Amino acid sequence: MTGRTVDTPPSTVDAFHRGRFVLVQPERGHRAGMDALVLAADVPDGFSGMLADLGAGAGAAALAVLARCPSSRAVLVEREPVMAAFARATLSHPTNAAYAHRAHVLEADVAASGRARIAAGLDDRSFDAVIMNPPFNDPADRASPEPLRAAAHVGLSQANGADLVDAWLRTAAAILVPRGLVALIARPASLPSVVKAIDGRFGEVRIVPIMPRPDASAIRVVIVARQGARGALSIAAPLILHEREGNAPSRRAEAILNGQAQLLPE
Amino acid sequence: MTGRTVDTPPSTVDAFHRGRFVLVQPERGHRAGMDALVLAADVPDGFSGMLADLGAGAGAAALAVLARCPSSRAVLVEREPVMAAFARATLSHPTNAAYAHRAHVLEADVAASGRARIAAGLDDRSFDAVIMNPPFNDPADRASPEPLRAAAHVGLSQANGADLVDAWLRTAAAILVPRGLVALIARPASLPSVVKAIDGRFGEVRIVPIMPRPDASAIRVVIVARQGARGALSIAAPLILHEREGNAPSRRAEAILNGQAQLLPE
Repeated sequence: MTGRTVDTPPSTVDAFHRGRFVLVQPERGHRAGMDALVLAADVPDGFSGMLADLGAGAGAAALAVLARCPSSRAVLVEREPVMAAFARATLSHPTNAAYAHRAHVLEADVAASGRARIAAGLDDRSFDAVIMNPPFNDPADRASPEPLRAAAHVGLSQANGADLVDAWLRTAAAILVPRGLVALIARPASLPSVVKAIDGRFGEVRIVPIMPRPDASAIRVVIVARQGARGALSIAAPLILHEREGNAPSRRAEAILNGQAQLLPE
Repeated sequence: MTGRTVDTPPSTVDAFHRGRFVLVQPERGHRAGMDALVLAADVPDGFSGMLADLGAGAGAAALAVLARCPSSRAVLVEREPVMAAFARATLSHPTNAAYAHRAHVLEADVAASGRARIAAGLDDRSFDAVIMNPPFNDPADRASPEPLRAAAHVGLSQANGADLVDAWLRTAAAILVPRGLVALIARPASLPSVVKAIDGRFGEVRIVPIMPRPDASAIRVVIVARQGARGALSIAAPLILHEREGNAPSRRAEAILNGQAQLLPE
């Protein structure tokens, strides 16, 4: 569907990683930020394989991996035609010329299974890593009055959150090579659904709480695992976004958000 | 079965909470320590109801609650006759005289269900809080050559870890009053089993990682939840046992381990 014309709403061009890449994204609705950058940091520095960014939106997480890992390649998988158009605009932007030749956009339904998934271009065992910021957050978000935001958060067939995460992780397990890495970011409230959907498909699960302050509860949780692995679940030291006082990011958060550090040791 | 005589192995008398209570426990095998004290700290300071300590062992966690919460009462539930005898010895020790009248030992199989559970003395809706340090840790522990330790860690009917945690949390849900508090401590590897067994029985789940150092992975995880509640899961700031350097406990850990602070805000 490359080259397809879609009416796109008003957009902005935003710089990330201290200007190393830009994102062309809608002015209103679901805009990329911390979640996408932390998600990208789950891919190790030395990654040199094929990445799938499921539900890529305008492409923030995929671009962050492409910019930090110079031998990586990526497929930006996005079902919503408007967001896929933004992802293509991102890849076509001159600032991103150094990375764009290593990536393309695939309009496909991540929740498709079996032949439908393969027909959509998501082949078995064809990716070395999968990242996802899936639309299975809390029901409050699903009532979003902003149509694009609502589409991103409701998911594709109005599936409930647990069904959706199960379908997305089923797809991830199918398209990954054995021991391939999956990473996702979610709200802590989604952890039970994620844990259930991961069980039996992935192992060596690592959970990383993302906390705004040293003493605060987590606002997000990162889950990283390996396809078909059998190692036990572990909980890594949290990423703390700010120090106890002040609004500046912590040193570690700043490095991660700017593409200068990976989130976890390998 | 109170007053029953059991041959007990060599024992020690160990002081906790800066001498406010002691534990009579076997010299070898599964000895109480950090796990039991952190578990006890999950009960809020102002708790004034009836507590069940499931798998109480020699009674460390229950005594820690009784010592910190002056209006609490407790039943120490333990199936192994030898450990139940140690629990009775703990309650009979003169140092614990101020608390012992608020507690008794019940020899019962926590994994029993339905009529068998009630016949064993674990009535429906009869407890305001349940704490447990269940024997469902990793398989390495089950091969322990130390018979008492092995008994504590294998669990009662050689059930595997997931079955055991499910049975223990089923019992907890049954014996708690509505919105009663359950707390358990486990290895991070047990988190998937715990999350599955909690789902549908408890809500307002709070997860607290227990980390040895600020940058280390969690060695234990505390899970606190309320019977029949519907609130979303959250991940609290971790308890960090030691500062970045040195072997002394962190200030917060010291307060918690000595019965001077609860683990979570209410």
